[in-house]
Amino acid sequence: MIATPDVVAARYRAEIRNEIDAHDRPLKVVGLLSGDYAPSRTYAAYTRKACEDLGIEYELREAARLDLEHAIRDANADPDVNGLMVYYPIFGNEQDRYLKEVVDYRKDIEGLHSFWINMLYSNERIDLDAPQPNKAVVPCTPLAILKMLEANGAYGSSGHEPAANRTVTIFNRSEVVGRPLAVMMSNDGATVYSFDEFGPLLYRGGQAEETDISREQALASSNVVITGVPSKSFPKIEAHELNANTVCLNFATVKNFTAEAEQQAQTFIPRVGPVTIAMCMRNTLRLYHAYQKK
Amino acid sequence: MIATPDVVAARYRAEIRNEIDAHDRPLKVVGLLSGDYAPSRTYAAYTRKACEDLGIEYELREAARLDLEHAIRDANADPDVNGLMVYYPIFGNEQDRYLKEVVDYRKDIEGLHSFWINMLYSNERIDLDAPQPNKAVVPCTPLAILKMLEANGAYGSSGHEPAANRTVTIFNRSEVVGRPLAVMMSNDGATVYSFDEFGPLLYRGGQAEETDISREQALASSNVVITGVPSKSFPKIEAHELNANTVCLNFATVKNFTAEAEQQAQTFIPRVGPVTIAMCMRNTLRLYHAYQKK
Repeated sequence: MIATPDVVAARYRAEIRNEIDAHDRPLKVVGLLSGDYAPSRTYAAYTRKACEDLGIEYELREAARLDLEHAIRDANADPDVNGLMVYYPIFGNEQDRYLKEVVDYRKDIEGLHSFWINMLYSNERIDLDAPQPNKAVVPCTPLAILKMLEANGAYGSSGHEPAANRTVTIFNRSEVVGRPLAVMMSNDGATVYSFDEFGPLLYRGGQAEETDISREQALASSNVVITGVPSKSFPKIEAHELNANTVCLNFATVKNFTAEAEQQAQTFIPRVGPVTIAMCMRNTLRLYHAYQKK
Repeated sequence: MIATPDVVAARYRAEIRNEIDAHDRPLKVVGLLSGDYAPSRTYAAYTRKACEDLGIEYELREAARLDLEHAIRDANADPDVNGLMVYYPIFGNEQDRYLKEVVDYRKDIEGLHSFWINMLYSNERIDLDAPQPNKAVVPCTPLAILKMLEANGAYGSSGHEPAANRTVTIFNRSEVVGRPLAVMMSNDGATVYSFDEFGPLLYRGGQAEETDISREQALASSNVVITGVPSKSFPKIEAHELNANTVCLNFATVKNFTAEAEQQAQTFIPRVGPVTIAMCMRNTLRLYHAYQKK
């Protein structure tokens, strides 16, 4: 079965719209874009649509890459801007990490600032679904992945360890998606094998351990397989490598599973983008309540 | 002429030793090492020697890469530790940037935390040679490069713009050396062409601008050429590409100039390591006076 994110995104948007409707003042999100990278323009267009659908004002600001830091600082200082979204890559190298730290963490609706990442790694976030102010912000893509798995029955939605008894393999250990995702899922009770081009790590209880498990062994033991490898040279996951009843999810723009593997999966989730954007909008509300409300 | 860093390092060490001798209590630096990467072990041995020579206590703590974050946090919390030095690479990917942020900036003698980098990019540092507390810390390798150029007459040592009328080409725009170096030199009045694998940028007055200058044009117009490309596939700089009277410096462990080019340079500086370590020790003193002295 193929499970697209639209239904799940619609549900979260409805929740957010209800909250926005009860608001005293409109919220505003600023998107910051540099250059002509087509996927970034597409993402910006989606963000605009999602914001306007929810009654959030959206403004796209374009700047040359060398002026982008200044544009971020302007938006940080502007009391009319409630949330900021930067469409990476800007420089396409480690300078992009620098820019993530320039965004004021109190307007960082993507949850990419080290303030939020450190809180996540310390497992200091509190229940994200409780109607409380001052909740921690977690990065949108990992959160969207959890929500998609939950909506498709591959992840518990409540309780102390909603992912207990789950074994998960993740191909991607980037600082913005794969590593936070491994930490979050293992904090929720899952056993997580995390692969990047340098090899595997095992995450349990939020902590990484060395392991020499092979790709084949990890896949054969997993109920959930998540991929995010932006390279066509990655050997696609094949049907014979997967367990029966495995839920598979790919968040890369490149196909990481063979067509046969996608077919064989109990559920195949080909993308999470709309849920990611919904999570950003939810973060906008949370940051407003935590830091900006007068 | 070949100019090795030993004489310059000895001069700074003498200054630091005088200051240490007048101290009320001994200072302690902790080095953190993971794995068997030979250059890191060599660097750790050099640090120990430099510390002991200056009367600073040095302790090397080794930890598995997955325990290194914890080891950093322990040293952060230990009031007997005045400075921390982490021997990168640890993971060899963007997780190393994460570790740089885990180091308490008040003990970051390498000046790699975003707290110090942001201060540098905002040009908030004040005169590093003034006998004042609360001075800004700048990253050790760029600072060592400036000190080596200064000692070899390629850079002014005082005045408002000590590098006015200097044109500099730098091959390296990493966040830890090349970019801060370009900003510092251009803040000092130099025109700086900065190359990385994605192309050139021009720095003037601390600000980057786009440029389409070629390698050949940049080299032909430069008084100072600095390289730090850790790859054997980088086409070595050849003698015919250089101006007469050019000062050349390579801080990579791989040769970036041909033997003929090294010969032709007015001065060729093949490494800066000992000065880098001396600058770290100076930072240790500064951080002690700024944040730790009771």
